Amino acid sequence: MPNPTAAMLVIGDEILSGRTQDTNTNHLATHLTAIGVDLREVRVVGDETADIVDAVNAPRARFDYVFTSGGIGPTHDDITADCIAQAFDVGIDVREDARAILATNYKNPDLELNEARLRMARIPDGADLIDNPISKAPGFRIGNVHVMAGVPAVFHAMVQSVLPTLNGGQPLLSITVRIEAPEGEIAARLSQLAKDAPNLSFGSYPFIQNGLFGSNIVVRGTDAEQLDTARQSLLVLAKNLKA
Amino acid sequence: MPNPTAAMLVIGDEILSGRTQDTNTNHLATHLTAIGVDLREVRVVGDETADIVDAVNAPRARFDYVFTSGGIGPTHDDITADCIAQAFDVGIDVREDARAILATNYKNPDLELNEARLRMARIPDGADLIDNPISKAPGFRIGNVHVMAGVPAVFHAMVQSVLPTLNGGQPLLSITVRIEAPEGEIAARLSQLAKDAPNLSFGSYPFIQNGLFGSNIVVRGTDAEQLDTARQSLLVLAKNLKA
Repeated sequence: MPNPTAAMLVIGDEILSGRTQDTNTNHLATHLTAIGVDLREVRVVGDETADIVDAVNAPRARFDYVFTSGGIGPTHDDITADCIAQAFDVGIDVREDARAILATNYKNPDLELNEARLRMARIPDGADLIDNPISKAPGFRIGNVHVMAGVPAVFHAMVQSVLPTLNGGQPLLSITVRIEAPEGEIAARLSQLAKDAPNLSFGSYPFIQNGLFGSNIVVRGTDAEQLDTARQSLLVLAKNLKA
Repeated sequence: MPNPTAAMLVIGDEILSGRTQDTNTNHLATHLTAIGVDLREVRVVGDETADIVDAVNAPRARFDYVFTSGGIGPTHDDITADCIAQAFDVGIDVREDARAILATNYKNPDLELNEARLRMARIPDGADLIDNPISKAPGFRIGNVHVMAGVPAVFHAMVQSVLPTLNGGQPLLSITVRIEAPEGEIAARLSQLAKDAPNLSFGSYPFIQNGLFGSNIVVRGTDAEQLDTARQSLLVLAKNLKA
């Protein structure tokens, strides 16, 4: 049975302007790989309703899981929750359970749980809450879409809340062999190795270090034994290059 | 006149598996912002022909410029050039000018310019070459799509080759004011400031530092004077919070 598939949607003008380097995708990708969920696509869109709605609706029909990051805070530019409600064509309002969770964050909720903060308790109808041990304001899951915060510490905590609820597949294992020669040198033999092992995926990731060209060969698959055989073949290849 | 728009397409299994943190998007975004080209969308897809073709064709119809990163090396998993040819429905073959450039990289081109390396001289019909001073193998531009390498040092060099050929718009300027209070504290006043200055875009980027919640307020726009007025208003807001 093939592994479940996933897409990630990063929401925020600050990523597109270059102000902020997105690291949430890499964090999620690493954790999904470890439980055998294949991340197939990532999109980044700005804080525009139509763009967000489209970028949620397209992948949720194609993939088993969708994860979003960003735009669920208390300020006027946080429009993700409304966009998700629109994408699913459901209502959205302040929900009592979310409001109660938020209230625990404030000494004097009557005073401090102002209108802006209450926005964070607005949850699309039919969604489940995602726990946020860092700053309380919950994320939520609706259908196969998991809506999480953009602040990395909060995103990480929410990913931890979500992971146990996912159906994983076969974890994708990988081995890496560093070849200290330009990849053009080894491409033909690498291509042959890839043909000989159709269950494995061979990737070549060139690097430049101190002016020298080299390549990390990464082999991915779900069978540890096959991967070990591939590693041995690559080590022989690397040794012959030096000889 | 609105600024030209752009999309970025990152190609590679290694980004989706979490092995590699993409930094090319952030590099490109920063440079596009500086010359007034608005990056509107980013996609990351794996080394799959159908995915790449779709992810090139959709944005090239919607945006003024498309930039791609990854998959133009000599190994079997480098399929980007073929996918671009397919997306544009044109032929692709080894081109003499590209082959001549590649040859300058080798002491003995007859021996060293092997079949794998010659793959890097395969250029879709009708494309212009993009200069690569680092490792010679060129990128290319076809229509509004700029196809560049994934290795960051080479990607950066290619971006430098491409930037002077783009029609920029009004550079997007920004100011940042750090507010040492949770964003829920200032959301209402921020929303009012945003309403009062419809030509500016106000973003609130919360952070957690040493257990304290704060927010960087970033205001973006093309008019330096308006931005300065916004900065003054935010500084007053920040001062009043402390008082």
